[in-house]
Amino acid sequence: MPSTFTATRRVEFSDTDLAGIVHFSRFFIYMESVEHEFLRSLGTSVVTEYEGDRIGWPRMSASCDYKAPAFFEDELEIVLRIERKGNKSLTYGFIFMRDEVTIATGQIGVACCVCNPGEKMRAIEIPEEIAGQIQEAGVGSGQ
Amino acid sequence: MPSTFTATRRVEFSDTDLAGIVHFSRFFIYMESVEHEFLRSLGTSVVTEYEGDRIGWPRMSASCDYKAPAFFEDELEIVLRIERKGNKSLTYGFIFMRDEVTIATGQIGVACCVCNPGEKMRAIEIPEEIAGQIQEAGVGSGQ
Amino acid sequence: MPSTFTATRRVEFSDTDLAGIVHFSRFFIYMESVEHEFLRSLGTSVVTEYEGDRIGWPRMSASCDYKAPAFFEDELEIVLRIERKGNKSLTYGFIFMRDEVTIATGQIGVACCVCNPGEKMRAIEIPEEIAGQIQEAGVGSGQ
Amino acid sequence: MPSTFTATRRVEFSDTDLAGIVHFSRFFIYMESVEHEFLRSLGTSVVTEYEGDRIGWPRMSASCDYKAPAFFEDELEIVLRIERKGNKSLTYGFIFMRDEVTIATGQIGVACCVCNPGEKMRAIEIPEEIAGQIQEAGVGSGQ
Repeated sequence: MPSTFTATRRVEFSDTDLAGIVHFSRFFIYMESVEHEFLRSLGTSVVTEYEGDRIGWPRMSASCDYKAPAFFEDELEIVLRIERKGNKSLTYGFIFMRDEVTIATGQIGVACCVCNPGEKMRAIEIPEEIAGQIQEAGVGSGQ
Repeated sequence: MPSTFTATRRVEFSDTDLAGIVHFSRFFIYMESVEHEFLRSLGTSVVTEYEGDRIGWPRMSASCDYKAPAFFEDELEIVLRIERKGNKSLTYGFIFMRDEVTIATGQIGVACCVCNPGEKMRAIEIPEEIAGQIQEAGVGSGQ
Repeated sequence: MPSTFTATRRVEFSDTDLAGIVHFSRFFIYMESVEHEFLRSLGTSVVTEYEGDRIGWPRMSASCDYKAPAFFEDELEIVLRIERKGNKSLTYGFIFMRDEVTIATGQIGVACCVCNPGEKMRAIEIPEEIAGQIQEAGVGSGQ
Repeated sequence: MPSTFTATRRVEFSDTDLAGIVHFSRFFIYMESVEHEFLRSLGTSVVTEYEGDRIGWPRMSASCDYKAPAFFEDELEIVLRIERKGNKSLTYGFIFMRDEVTIATGQIGVACCVCNPGEKMRAIEIPEEIAGQIQEAGVGSGQ
């Protein structure tokens, strides 16, 4: 049962800014993209149907710590890790690496919600078909 | 009855790329933003209701010719001009200026459509309350 | 001597995503834009020259907590507050409001650096002409 | 000698807007990204050194015609085609497909320039090591 997931991503020209490095806001797009790739790997999506409701995962929080710049055409390795698995929410941790260098670390907290059009969003328990497939990464387990 | 509209916009850091200039794709965001400001100036919006339907203006085409680079913190003057007013569509022309320098010119073609959720979009005649407020810029009129 | 700064910003169409709300990554762009407007209000810029060196403010960290969604054409009030003023770094806090509703709060930590082209960046003390103009917001001062 | 190049790209959440489809400006990012992948396939880059100068390819023009919407998680096939090979410039054509459906077609015109920092850009002949590797797609050749 996975608690981590790894993806790679090449830095695009439009990700950079006049300082010649990846703009800090792009790391959040990168994180989200890996999250969605992770969900696809479980056979689901960040936008899906469940028992007649539209399920989404609105972001509650997001953060990133920048250690070293990333440059155009760098190939970044991005590791996603389930840091916390709650009943109705998940916290993902991310590590960005280029070769042996840690570029950044980040975190996104999401809530599992019913997001039907025209209705107010409401948090729900993570459907078992998703919750049953993931587990919290163990402390100090390297996972 | 207006056939032109002028807005200003300051270049943001995240608009630039590693070449130190505004990324070419940003000009399309700038154009769209002026279009929406123009529609607000008419008392409407790019997303609005009309006789119980949701009206939108999907893009059919977009183009831009780049004459000179724009830089971080430049204040650009952007002139919108109604180049063509059809029954169901509009063509907007744009000129980007910094002081006396033409930075770029562009064009966006939009169709007036009913965009109700869950329905296939369909083109409609531009509602009179909008069409009646705008006119095609005259050839050689400086408008 | 200012410890807060307030700006307004209208949500653009391209800031939104298929959930119909402002994409979470855009809040970081909004924050940075207010920071730069703040620096301009002090007569400086996020990219400037000082004693023959190019000074920049690379981001060390960024975070955002999302309280309520923001929508297309919302006019957001964004309050910047100097949360911490170090010798070589600043921490900015941000509050996003729409009318009386808190939409989000965020934080960006920046280091003052010499960023000469072709040289390795190095942190320096904030030049007095900038440091002398700003002060940390007092705890509980409403500032 | 290649005159076409094909890439695939999955639509990301942040590519979409409140209309539930890919924002029209993103197609320009997609096109540029394929152009750069094409240049890498030739062993070069959009930013490279040649005889001691920094070579870049500033955009002179860009356009896109939108035929059908693209949606979140769509996997698009994007075909690049050398439409015109001049001495100092190239025109790329692009076709976006999803399965058998044409989503959009586009064009980007670029100039080969020396872009040394601190110097005014100047157009130059495309270096033979690049020009020698590409050819204009034949009319009606299916290429």
